[in-house]
Amino acid sequence: MGDYFVRGFKASVLAAGIKKRGGLDLALIFSEREASAAGVFTGNKVKAAPVLVSQENIKKGRGRAIVANSGNANACTGEAGLQSARFTVERAAKELGIGPGEVLVASTGVIGAPLNTDVIGKALPELVKGLSADAIPRVVEAIMTTDSFPKLSLFEGKAGGKSYKVVGMAKGAGMIMPDMATMLCFILTDIAVDPTRLNEALVWGVERTFNRISVDGDMSTNDTVFVLANGAAGNGSLSPEDFQGFRAGLATVMDELSTMIVRDGEGATKLIRLAIKGAATPADALAAARTVANSALVKTAFYGSDPNWGRIMAALGRSGIQMREEGVTIWVDDVKIVEEGMGRGAEPEAKAAAKMKGKEFSVTVDLHEGKFEDHITTCDLTHEYVSINADYRT
Amino acid sequence: MGDYFVRGFKASVLAAGIKKRGGLDLALIFSEREASAAGVFTGNKVKAAPVLVSQENIKKGRGRAIVANSGNANACTGEAGLQSARFTVERAAKELGIGPGEVLVASTGVIGAPLNTDVIGKALPELVKGLSADAIPRVVEAIMTTDSFPKLSLFEGKAGGKSYKVVGMAKGAGMIMPDMATMLCFILTDIAVDPTRLNEALVWGVERTFNRISVDGDMSTNDTVFVLANGAAGNGSLSPEDFQGFRAGLATVMDELSTMIVRDGEGATKLIRLAIKGAATPADALAAARTVANSALVKTAFYGSDPNWGRIMAALGRSGIQMREEGVTIWVDDVKIVEEGMGRGAEPEAKAAAKMKGKEFSVTVDLHEGKFEDHITTCDLTHEYVSINADYRT
Repeated sequence: MGDYFVRGFKASVLAAGIKKRGGLDLALIFSEREASAAGVFTGNKVKAAPVLVSQENIKKGRGRAIVANSGNANACTGEAGLQSARFTVERAAKELGIGPGEVLVASTGVIGAPLNTDVIGKALPELVKGLSADAIPRVVEAIMTTDSFPKLSLFEGKAGGKSYKVVGMAKGAGMIMPDMATMLCFILTDIAVDPTRLNEALVWGVERTFNRISVDGDMSTNDTVFVLANGAAGNGSLSPEDFQGFRAGLATVMDELSTMIVRDGEGATKLIRLAIKGAATPADALAAARTVANSALVKTAFYGSDPNWGRIMAALGRSGIQMREEGVTIWVDDVKIVEEGMGRGAEPEAKAAAKMKGKEFSVTVDLHEGKFEDHITTCDLTHEYVSINADYRT
Repeated sequence: MGDYFVRGFKASVLAAGIKKRGGLDLALIFSEREASAAGVFTGNKVKAAPVLVSQENIKKGRGRAIVANSGNANACTGEAGLQSARFTVERAAKELGIGPGEVLVASTGVIGAPLNTDVIGKALPELVKGLSADAIPRVVEAIMTTDSFPKLSLFEGKAGGKSYKVVGMAKGAGMIMPDMATMLCFILTDIAVDPTRLNEALVWGVERTFNRISVDGDMSTNDTVFVLANGAAGNGSLSPEDFQGFRAGLATVMDELSTMIVRDGEGATKLIRLAIKGAATPADALAAARTVANSALVKTAFYGSDPNWGRIMAALGRSGIQMREEGVTIWVDDVKIVEEGMGRGAEPEAKAAAKMKGKEFSVTVDLHEGKFEDHITTCDLTHEYVSINADYRT
């Protein structure tokens, strides 16, 4: 796990007793040096307390610590929830000897239940004492909920002749988890980059990765992506080329993590890369991709390995985009099943069904309306999805 | 079944051989007199051939015959599909001795397969020969696909001192059925009403009934509602009061039929009446209702009898409406489970869970933002829904 060591960063994890069933549930990430910080948060109007507090703190573009817990989302908890999040921030700052404005917080787990600050207050000194470089990859373990595997990703690059690393860790098995247990992602890098450009790179990458996956079309109140860049690589100011390289590396890490999240989607048995081509506008390309990817009928057909292109046509038809039925071509992997809006018969459908029996395939739609493209990585809708989400709290 | 007799209307049904597995699959409805006609069709941009042909024919506001088939949707069939629909219209007109502009068509079943006009051409003379008043309630049998029960509704009213009937028949077990087998509804009445007002009453009613149900959020290419009014009641011109009475009666029939469709929703075990109150605008009220009703997480929680209000809060938060988390109150039937955006604890949740174990319950959300309300009737998302839709074509 030495690969995930990033200069100047340490971490610490603990079973603090927040999760009812026990296990690691609290993590601290700390940068020994001042660091640039950027964050992207859920677009949901119902925002968890840690989201509101972190949004405020990250405005200055600086941050040195992240405190994250699982077992309790601290969402829909009102004023008391905000006080708990602020208490966590202040207590962590005090123990670390840094300003409260440099502490970010994130939570995932059951919603609507008060977050026990006694437990966190007691755990924080211990967490600080336990800080070590080795613990970085263990942070994922402390924030996992229904995840079936830990999600880590590494990129190594060079800027100004100096090597740097980008290490990402994430949890999430759906766009929204049972009880909104959320997608969380923390990225650490030792590159030196100013907060404005760091934010620019993060927003660019999130738009291309985390905003291009879908498990069930729902959206959590807690979704959070943080990136801290502490400059320990000593690369000096970034050239435009080196910034491009860093931005691409950051996006690679987020792409890997977001794909892992879909692969681990609740009850999912298949990963589908859905591409829309030939849209009249960029907005049309995305709307078409989202509507097809979120259709319950399309997703159950994926589960049944059924190249039921009629459902894709119907989803396109209600997506609000500019389209002509007779303009549509559809492929499953390299098998063309629809041309000019009509099925190509039993033989290509049988070939497509065979491809769909695999764990991963692509569906490509060409609208022939224009030159714009977009894509969504998604999964199937299964019996197991219904089981997980019908029975979660019982 | 004499209740469903409507003066001046006859019908006829047949096993024509369109359905692969056999059974009734072709129906003819005929008005012995000229009739006002109105229709509402799917908003999907991908429209089946019979929808395109009927949309054209109904423009004049007149119609005397409906030919409907199951077993083949005649959708995504290109120019050949249009020719099949036009052939059906012309052949029926010839056999009935009426103008082709007075014939409406509707199809439901497998998509993307050519509709065999030989079979329909051969069946039409037989259908015409078999016309009888008794067969009206049997039309539903000929258009059923995965429906588990026939859907019929009756309203009796008075206008200008004369009694009239409104008889509705519908098929559909989802907003979109497997292979888009569609929602179809035919309504027959002997009231005298001019086409403009008939259309006005139909659109008014559809907006309040068929546009307020949701099974899976998908939308078919074939959805069609027709109403024929042949004036055999002899009520003369409608007074404003009598028009109001007719419009309400028509809506009652459509409400009953649309509720039956949800009750028969694919795999559904529960009917949920979802109401949104206190929205800032009418559009907000509807957007909130649609987003909550279509959320996979909310619908699986309904299935699990789990008053998981966090999922409702999250759906509201992503619906794009004006809202404040602390403004939200949520009830299950008469049990208040959320107040000021926060859960009211284990006791009301246990009571709500007990209500949710029933076959039917209501969920009411008050946003406290304004005075607008709306509602959606919906069902739960179950293992059986996944089974039906994953395995339909295999």
